[in-house]
Amino acid sequence: MSPLIDQLIEALRILPGVGPRSAQRMVLHLLEKNPEGGLNLANCLKATIEGVDHCKKCRNLTENDLCSICENPARNDTEICVVENPADVIAIEQAGGFRGRYFVLMGHLSPIDGIGPDDLGIEVLVENVKSGPVEEVILAVNLTVEGEATAHYISELLRPLNIIISRLAHGIPVGGELEYIDGSTIAHALEGRKKI
Amino acid sequence: MSPLIDQLIEALRILPGVGPRSAQRMVLHLLEKNPEGGLNLANCLKATIEGVDHCKKCRNLTENDLCSICENPARNDTEICVVENPADVIAIEQAGGFRGRYFVLMGHLSPIDGIGPDDLGIEVLVENVKSGPVEEVILAVNLTVEGEATAHYISELLRPLNIIISRLAHGIPVGGELEYIDGSTIAHALEGRKKI
Repeated sequence: MSPLIDQLIEALRILPGVGPRSAQRMVLHLLEKNPEGGLNLANCLKATIEGVDHCKKCRNLTENDLCSICENPARNDTEICVVENPADVIAIEQAGGFRGRYFVLMGHLSPIDGIGPDDLGIEVLVENVKSGPVEEVILAVNLTVEGEATAHYISELLRPLNIIISRLAHGIPVGGELEYIDGSTIAHALEGRKKI
Repeated sequence: MSPLIDQLIEALRILPGVGPRSAQRMVLHLLEKNPEGGLNLANCLKATIEGVDHCKKCRNLTENDLCSICENPARNDTEICVVENPADVIAIEQAGGFRGRYFVLMGHLSPIDGIGPDDLGIEVLVENVKSGPVEEVILAVNLTVEGEATAHYISELLRPLNIIISRLAHGIPVGGELEYIDGSTIAHALEGRKKI
């Protein structure tokens, strides 16, 4: 309808889950109902993309040298939880219960995509473990082929350091009904069953 | 997780259909996968919100004085289609078949929200009709209480000008199955039935 509007609709479509129809709705909404909010969004986008980088210690996203978790002296230095993505850190933090440190790989080993140990900062992780009072590394990577390969690779590197290496438990989700759970999850749940 | 990221998540939530979870996914996607696209989006947002205003003639959104439809000499000057929103213009244009001009009210009469004839530019519409070779005004406002009131108000103003005033036909949508259509639509379809 107007070159500028068409361009903005196109630009919005890089957002995950935004198709042509919802992009159009977003643009018309901003122009008609909330232009100030749109300008604020533009400024926030610029500031965040230009200001946020990886934490020097755990590789999580932060605008400072160290992220808020690495800088928090109240966290437990003896446990490091290794995850694939910043979203995993958010999920674990929201669940509560873990008070240790994190290490964010920003992906998983994937030779096909040319992603090797260097891209995941695995040397930095090993260095963190060697230099700190770490007693346990929890490999909270995903239960996929690539995730498992990544977990195996890291655990082989850490084994000589004589620390506990663990994986998250896999099994029936809380509230999950057996009849709707896939067979592989049930197999894991059976294998990992506990005496009560 | 970081003040800048939290702020951007908050800023994205002004977009229709974006909740806290999808805003978070959008931010992480932009930061990890497509920072250039994010910066481009920020620039497009700013340019569009600062550059786009209403067409002086039809009130549709445009970055010029007149929108591309008002400026197009190939359009039919004898028909004006009155709609509530720019999205309605897009929908009618995409459907094809209408080659006349538009007038965009940017809303409907709503005394409760303090929206009167002046806010909808109804005087501009009447002026357009008086000054042009207009033969028919199609009131394509929505079939809601407010839309009907708006259509009634406009048709009373236009009646002395001795032109055709029409409303869109209401009835069963193409492909609609009778058993799933609401009673009020069926009543309209019956009332507007045609001999074959």
